Amino acid sequence: MANETTVLTADELLKNWQGHRRLTRKTIEAFPEDKLFGFSLGGMRTFAEMASEFLHMAIPIVDGVATGKWEEFKAEKPTTKAEILKMWDQQTAELDEKFPKIPPHRFLEVDKAFGQWENTNIATIQYAIDNEIHHRGQGYVYLRALGIEPPPFWER
Amino acid sequence: MANETTVLTADELLKNWQGHRRLTRKTIEAFPEDKLFGFSLGGMRTFAEMASEFLHMAIPIVDGVATGKWEEFKAEKPTTKAEILKMWDQQTAELDEKFPKIPPHRFLEVDKAFGQWENTNIATIQYAIDNEIHHRGQGYVYLRALGIEPPPFWER
Repeated sequence: MANETTVLTADELLKNWQGHRRLTRKTIEAFPEDKLFGFSLGGMRTFAEMASEFLHMAIPIVDGVATGKWEEFKAEKPTTKAEILKMWDQQTAELDEKFPKIPPHRFLEVDKAFGQWENTNIATIQYAIDNEIHHRGQGYVYLRALGIEPPPFWER
Repeated sequence: MANETTVLTADELLKNWQGHRRLTRKTIEAFPEDKLFGFSLGGMRTFAEMASEFLHMAIPIVDGVATGKWEEFKAEKPTTKAEILKMWDQQTAELDEKFPKIPPHRFLEVDKAFGQWENTNIATIQYAIDNEIHHRGQGYVYLRALGIEPPPFWER
């Protein structure tokens, strides 16, 4: 038995993603600056490094899906919380501008993202969102271990 | 500018969810039994408690969305890794059976899930998946802190 019901449109996916990105922004904000760049558990990356990874994925992926040109994110590596948040807010605006312009046929096309990861474009976008949820959850453990209450997961 | 392109069907959502559930199953398996039930960081729950939460959400939510009847999961709390995995596999089969039978019109209807959380049914399903990704990411930190390599995130 198949169920081909549409459960998500491009507009709704963007809305979900921006909701997650708002929560990730609050998570970045919750870290004291020195811990954002200096604290981790189990030999893992700092949350600043994870946040930088999110910035390397979001807009470059949307650009790749929209245009078929997969280019690495070229910005300087942020070294302060304020720089991360500024880049975050720039990408928020860019996402709202660029995502709705993705040509409909592009979502199901298969690209080799950044010359490496071959998948449908929608799967690549979904991977970026899932990756952000996954690592943000890890940031929550860092915050708890630091005695800091993370932002409520259900608030977006 | 709106983009009403379908990016996800019910079938694909089920496929994504089961992919995440396979990864979560591997994460449960990666824990030594005593650590699954006894280890945590930052005063958080054990991964066994998180896995139990996933079991309390998946099938009860699909049943609620399918029928409009929102009933708590009533099984005994699992006390061994084997019990958790057995319940997990039962739900995997149930999900494959029940999810495709959700009446198409139910996805966009608004229910008060379990008498408490009012949202569209598709948002409630997505919440369950996001919640699983979020807490599984936390399980990865527990594993790393225990010196155990977690399963690769990109393998489903």
